[in-house]
Parts: sequence; structure tokens; C-alpha cells
Amino acid sequence: MINSVGRDIPNKIEGYKKVVPFSGAYSNLGNGVRVSGRYRTILPGEKKVLGSIREAIEKVGLKDGMTISFHHHLRNGDYVLNMVVDEIARMGIKDIKIAASSIFNCHEPLIEHIKNGVVTSIEANYIVGPVATAISKGILDVPVVMRSHGGRDRAIEAGELHIDVAFIAAPSADIYGNINGIYGPSACGSLGYSFSDARYADWVIAITDNLVSFPLIPISIDQTFVDYVVKVEKIGDPKGIVSGTTNITRDPVGLKIACMAADVIEASGLLKDGISFQTGAGGTSLAVASFLKQKMKEKRITGSFGLGGITGFFVEMLREGLFKALLDTQCFDLKAVESLREDRNHIEITSSMYGNPHNKGAVVNNLDVMILGATEIDTDFNVNVTTGSNGIIMGGSGGHNDTAAGSKLAVVVTSLIKGRLPIVVERVTTVTTPGETIDVLVTEYGIAVNPKNVELKKKIVDNKLPVVDIKELKDIAYRLCGRPDDIKFGERIVAIVEYRDGTVIDVIREVTR
Amino acid sequence: MINSVGRDIPNKIEGYKKVVPFSGAYSNLGNGVRVSGRYRTILPGEKKVLGSIREAIEKVGLKDGMTISFHHHLRNGDYVLNMVVDEIARMGIKDIKIAASSIFNCHEPLIEHIKNGVVTSIEANYIVGPVATAISKGILDVPVVMRSHGGRDRAIEAGELHIDVAFIAAPSADIYGNINGIYGPSACGSLGYSFSDARYADWVIAITDNLVSFPLIPISIDQTFVDYVVKVEKIGDPKGIVSGTTNITRDPVGLKIACMAADVIEASGLLKDGISFQTGAGGTSLAVASFLKQKMKEKRITGSFGLGGITGFFVEMLREGLFKALLDTQCFDLKAVESLREDRNHIEITSSMYGNPHNKGAVVNNLDVMILGATEIDTDFNVNVTTGSNGIIMGGSGGHNDTAAGSKLAVVVTSLIKGRLPIVVERVTTVTTPGETIDVLVTEYGIAVNPKNVELKKKIVDNKLPVVDIKELKDIAYRLCGRPDDIKFGERIVAIVEYRDGTVIDVIREVTR
Repeated sequence: MINSVGRDIPNKIEGYKKVVPFSGAYSNLGNGVRVSGRYRTILPGEKKVLGSIREAIEKVGLKDGMTISFHHHLRNGDYVLNMVVDEIARMGIKDIKIAASSIFNCHEPLIEHIKNGVVTSIEANYIVGPVATAISKGILDVPVVMRSHGGRDRAIEAGELHIDVAFIAAPSADIYGNINGIYGPSACGSLGYSFSDARYADWVIAITDNLVSFPLIPISIDQTFVDYVVKVEKIGDPKGIVSGTTNITRDPVGLKIACMAADVIEASGLLKDGISFQTGAGGTSLAVASFLKQKMKEKRITGSFGLGGITGFFVEMLREGLFKALLDTQCFDLKAVESLREDRNHIEITSSMYGNPHNKGAVVNNLDVMILGATEIDTDFNVNVTTGSNGIIMGGSGGHNDTAAGSKLAVVVTSLIKGRLPIVVERVTTVTTPGETIDVLVTEYGIAVNPKNVELKKKIVDNKLPVVDIKELKDIAYRLCGRPDDIKFGERIVAIVEYRDGTVIDVIREVTR
Repeated sequence: MINSVGRDIPNKIEGYKKVVPFSGAYSNLGNGVRVSGRYRTILPGEKKVLGSIREAIEKVGLKDGMTISFHHHLRNGDYVLNMVVDEIARMGIKDIKIAASSIFNCHEPLIEHIKNGVVTSIEANYIVGPVATAISKGILDVPVVMRSHGGRDRAIEAGELHIDVAFIAAPSADIYGNINGIYGPSACGSLGYSFSDARYADWVIAITDNLVSFPLIPISIDQTFVDYVVKVEKIGDPKGIVSGTTNITRDPVGLKIACMAADVIEASGLLKDGISFQTGAGGTSLAVASFLKQKMKEKRITGSFGLGGITGFFVEMLREGLFKALLDTQCFDLKAVESLREDRNHIEITSSMYGNPHNKGAVVNNLDVMILGATEIDTDFNVNVTTGSNGIIMGGSGGHNDTAAGSKLAVVVTSLIKGRLPIVVERVTTVTTPGETIDVLVTEYGIAVNPKNVELKKKIVDNKLPVVDIKELKDIAYRLCGRPDDIKFGERIVAIVEYRDGTVIDVIREVTR
């Protein structure tokens, strides 16, 4: 069946729930009951601290066929996923599903575990590196389910992703299972993605390298959700956890795009007291933020909140009084971590509160402006941030389609061409974010406004900004680079791209060469 | 059937779930699934702020026979319960169950609503004043269910108390439903008792007199749980919400008891680095805390945490470095409210985290010492804080039986006689807290140690403190006051006293004169 972004979705996909094709960003609404979490009496005097990961795995009765989960705040410095899966392998447990919020390069050892039948299934919001490539080449028999950050929480609450055991990397934990991410040698800041795991998994094991006496203050995930605590030597490599700093681009093309994007935002009328926005940590996105900051200062505008994915740049804006608050699902750099410790108006939020489309209003709904990147964007404004030009998985939605759907103005910023490849194309390889939720595309060759936004287009034209048709941008790109070659896909589906509401927006097929 | 504290409990009670008799403080363990909360999509652009309580009641579809809930942090200054029930009455809705965490004198208007059939059932952890008296005299056809604070959360999570609509008095709320209790003209501090209502009610309505722009910081209950926000002129009378200050007793008898209690705690061996304790806001309890504080300073002891029910006295201890942290379910005075705003180591916790016996370890399990009051205590150490000497309801467990069960040392402090009535009796009128969870009773006539605590008794004797048998205390009291008259109860059960685990520890019958 053809879904509403024109993708041919099979009626049935082996190893996946009932297929519901994507039918519009706001059509599959939620109204029902959340799944139940488990409760369990822990009596006065009972201890939660165990001696090893193995002991914890034994205690919770992990066995063949179960699902285990991980959060990705330690990013490419994470040791916990590998430690746990290595132990599971040593114990002879097989057929495990990994439900990680993201998978990074550091998780390459998973490949061996897949080959050995220890891991047979993966679900994640974002997958890069060797595991992503192996998936695209068909290493797993069951397709990977890729979701948005908000969509993962939705799936957990809906019972579509049932977690038997959540392993939570805890930069700090006390002996009774209270956890935060802001202290300790592996401090990563916000633990936003791990809350649903803690609330809904049957068993929750905290793994920490900073075990403290009761009570840990502040508390992010509290003791009422945590069954056991295990102390290990190191949960991660600080170098991989957060960048030292995130920097604004120095590339003149990137700066030109960023400057135009800021002008678009100004033209839209949203640049006024109370403005809120989110940018990624990419150089161009940060440059947009920088230009916006400049405009805010000139016009003496005080913003409402910055959302994210928080960087030191946003911390500076908070401290200069340009934002009233920062709402933080993950810290991108050390300054953000330090600020989450120090600044009272910089608060941790759960990814469910951030983007779950089936709760009583996620924060993305309050967002004025979202600055988005794109690996590809097509003439229907559909965006791909999941697969590369070679068809191989190298990312995923993360918060991309959550914020696009929620924000008043979703702006994609990208250069028209990257590495001799057109970014604006006729048809994206994979749809991550539906075009109906993208308002405007800003490239160095001009600004394309989604035709649905008649009023916005008028405002941008009135401000004498260079508006072009997106098809023209595609034509320019194709003229400069040639039409991109078709990717040679096999028939087998290696990944399912779920929209945040749980419908199937696209499928990814095996790359055969 | 006779339960394990010797109370005759009917096999079946009209209007109440299946009766499970109390069978020991740690025998009815929890291990299962929590009930599910509801989710509901709120789309970008949808507003949550409504014009009136009536509009909110209409929106959520409140109808005859439903259960509505309230928290009691505004205590005797609360306007919200009356406002809502008045509106319900005006709308002609009948047969409503009120599930309040507590009911105070200010809720007297409920009596008229009961007479008119608007309210037909009540569940609460603590009931005083005219409503309590009316209940004892049989105003309701269905028995009231009285729980502990932790037991109420357990009941909600177990689905035994299903809330259709939670009305949450919000000292501050933003336009998207984020709530806290620390700012605004009706600031009450912690909102600890209202979290389960927010998480598990089908509909959640925040009622505030301090509506602010998005986002409110900090956030106690977040937007993902709140359907609607209503602004009213005043949610409460500050004079009734918190006392200006809570004071240590000046009564010499109280001071003597307090001094002995502190000596008992010292003798127990718990007075060492890392000590944690909770006291109520009563003058004698505070005096115990004061003597403990003195001992801690003399011995250069640093405590771990203070729990409660927080008073300015505990705030001082935190600020002087005698506690590492305060864990707060409700603020008893203005200084506590101010501290919750200012002191980072003073944190709000949910009442589920505080005392729910069916979660993965409540904070009461971490408590060293609990100082408890008693309306009556009997020779089996069972404590009554639910009914007065006339058999009429005038309180309830609150955290009494939660903390007694969790703490290492549960100390009851009371004068032997109050108002010419013996407090130590042969058999308490109502069992609120089972004797097996009470370790020691301290009166001005000596210290009675629960016979199960052989080692503790030895330590106290070794410290040359005046140990007496509890039966002797009873004899002294009866000698001084005479044996108390039997109360004339009718047959009808007007209230069921649930132990924190949901078993029936006692029933309260109608007072017929």
C-alpha cells in the first residue's frame, strides 16, 4: 500500500507488529491507556547494590528472547551497552533484542554478538557506524525498528516496545538507586531518554562508576523504579561522552545560509519577546542561533526557552538573559553539563515530555522555531536524515520529526550540494520527516517555502529575501552534480522507519553492493 | 474474622472491595503491575487554559457516580475542594466520591453536599473537624476508606482507588499545565501527595491563582499529565496553608519526654554519622529534634537526611550542615516553603516515594529514627491516631504507619495522660499502626520497650534510662484517671482503616451518642 508520502509499504512485515501506513502528521492521534509498569516490594533492610553485572542479570532472570534497553547519553563514549552484552554472551544467553535510544560507532562489538546469535534484533532512534552499515547489509534476520525520540516513548507507553530489563548508565547513583547524570567522572548531564525505560521496564538495573551514600541530590530517576545498582570501574570515556565545546561554522556558505535563515525567522514574525527555538549541535545550526542571538540583542528581545540537545551556546544565551529557561533532554558539551548542575533555569526533561505525540502536549508543541538539518530533502519537502546517499543507514530521526511536527516554524538549513552530491532531490532515499511538517528550506541558492505556507511566503518575499521554487533548487543541484545514481537495493527490508505516531513512514531495504 | 492485631473484621463490607484482613506489617507484599494511566494527544496550537471550573468540568465530562480527587497541601486554608464541589452541585451532578489526601475543618461545606446527595462517598488519609464528626455519626451510607499516605499511592497504583478527575490546587501553573507549589500568593511548598493523582487519573485539571507564561520553572507535575488549567482568584487562605512558624514545646512534661526520647535514640546506637530522622510538627516531636540536634553538635555528627513533613527547624539543621538533605512531601511552615525554593539539597518527593509499600523501596525504608505521636497506645504497642477518646474520627494515619514500618527505630512520645484521660490503654479504640512496628514508647513515667526488641531494651537499661513495662504504664494511667469508659458504638461501620498494604487493620463504627 502507498502511504501518504508516496512510499510503498508492504501490508505485512515479518517480525514486525501490524503495519499501519503513515497517513499524515496529525491523523493518528493517541487517546487510550498507557501500558502498566511493574511494582515490587523492597523491604526495609534489603540491599540494592550487587557485586557485578552478572549477578544483576541473574537476579532479574534475564533469559533467551528478552528485550534489554539502553540510553545513549554517553554517546560514543558509552561502555555500558558493550559491557552488558559481553556478559550476556559469556552467560550463554541468546536471542536478545537491544532497544537502545541510539547506537554509535563504539558499539561495533554488537556485530560479533549478532553473528553469534546473542543479539537478534535491534530497535533504536539513531544508528551510525559499523552497526548501521552491517544492518543495511542485512546482518539481522528481523528488520530494525527506527523511531523518533518522542516516538520511542510513545511505543514504550503503548506496549509496542516492551522492555524486560533496562540497563541504565548512571553517572551518579546512590545505594538505593537514585540516579542523576550531572555528577561523577562520566557526567553526561541530562538523562532525558532513559525515563520511560525506568518507568515501564519490568526490571531496572543502574550501572554506575560513582556510587554515593543515600540520598543522592538531585534525583533524576528515583529509587522507586530501580531494582538493583551495580558499581563498575568506568561507565564511559569522557572524551566520547561530550565534546569539549560545540562551535559555530566558519564555512562562508554555512554562514550565508545561517544568516538567511535568521532573516526568514525574522520575516516570519516569530522574532519577538517569548521566542523559543531549538537547533542541533551542527555548525550551521549554531550559526543560525548566533545570528538570532544578535538580532535578539539588537531588538532587546527576551526569549522564552531553548530546547534540545543543549549546547554551551544556549547556556550563554540563558546566562545573558536571552532565554528564560533551557529544557534539556541531552547535553551536547561540557558547558551544558556544568550549566545543568549550576543554573536553576536549566532543567532536565524527559524525552516523552519533549516529543511524545501521544501525551497531553509535548514541549515541541510549544516551540516557535526549529532549525533542522537534512541529508536529503525532496521537492515535496520530505526530509531524509536516516540513510546516506549510498542507501546505508547513518542516522535516524532523533528529535527531527518530533520537532518538525510540533514547532510553528520548521526551517531546514543545508547547502545545496555536499561532497559533489545534490541534497535537494526529486525523491529522498528514505523519508524521515514528512514534507507537510517542514515549512521552509534555506540554501545558499535561495529560500524555498512549502507551498502550504502562503502567508509565510508573502512575508519572506515582502522582506526581499531570495525565494525560489524548491524544484528550481533541485534543478540547479542536478545541473551542478548530475542526477544522482539510483541506489541498488535488494528486496529484503532491513529497517522500518516509524513516524513518531507509530505508523510506517518508510522502509529501508538491504544494500546489495 | 479476627486479624493479626486482634480486631474482628467482617468478611464482607457493603460498598467496599474484597476484605483482606491485616496479617502482619510485612506479609502482604506487592509484586505485580501498576494500573495504567491514560494518554491523550494534545495537538500543537491547542490551548489548555479554560475560563472557569464549570467549563473544565464540562470538558472532562464529569458525571454522576464518578470519583474526584484533591491534595491537601493547602490544608486548612484550602479553597479548591469547596469551589469544585460547589460547582458540581450547581451543575446538578450527584453521587460523587471525594478522594482527598486529607479533609480539614475548612471542608465543612461538604456536609451539606452529602445531605443533598452530591457527595456520597469519601476516601482520605486524615480527616478532622466537622466532616469527621459527621462521618462518625453516620452521615454517609458507604463507609469511608482511610489509608496511610503511602497506602493511598499504593491503592491508586493498584487500581483500588480509580480517580476519574483529579483537581490539583496549583500555587503556580503555566499555560501548558506545568505546576509547582513554591511560588505564588498561595505557595505551600511541596506537592508530594498529588503526583499519583496526576499520573493515574483519567483527567487532570490544575486550578491556580498564579498563572504564568510557559515554561514554569521548576516543574513539579509536568504538562504531560495535565489536561486543563483554570485560573481562579484565590486557591487558598495563606493563614490556613502554613503556620508562620512551628515551635518547640515549652511544657516541662513534654520537654522531659523529649529529652528521654533523645537519650533512647542515643542509647540505640543510631546517633552517629549518617543518622536520618523524621518528626512531626508537634511541640514534643520538635523538642526531640532539638535535643538530637544538640547531641549531634556536641558529638560532631553529620546526619544524612531529614524526612517529612518539613519544618523550619529541619531547615536550620540543613543549613547548619547537620543534614545533608531534606526530602519533603509537605511543608509545615513558611520557612520550609522558602527553603524548598532556595536550598538545593531540600527536595520535593512524591508520597509514593515517601511511603508506598509496594514500590521498589520507599524512603521510609531508609529512615533510622521516626518520632511518632499517639492519641492512644495499648499494651501491645498498637497506636491509635485515628479516633479520639469519644470514638469520633479526628485524624488518621497520614505517614504514621508508613514510617513506623520503614524506620529502624520507631519511637512514640506522649505524656501518659492528656485531659484527664489515659493515653496508654489496654486496647486502643482504633488500630492505626500495628504494635509490631513500634519499637519504644517514651512517657514522663518511663520508657516501655516493645518486648520483641531484646537488644534495644538491654542498651537502654545499660544507659540507666528508666525502663518500665508498658502494662505498668497502663496501670499508672488507670490509677490516676480511672479505667476509661467504654465508648457506645453502634453496629454500622462508618470507616475502614486500611493498613498501608491495603489490608483491613480496623473498622470504625458509628458513634450513637
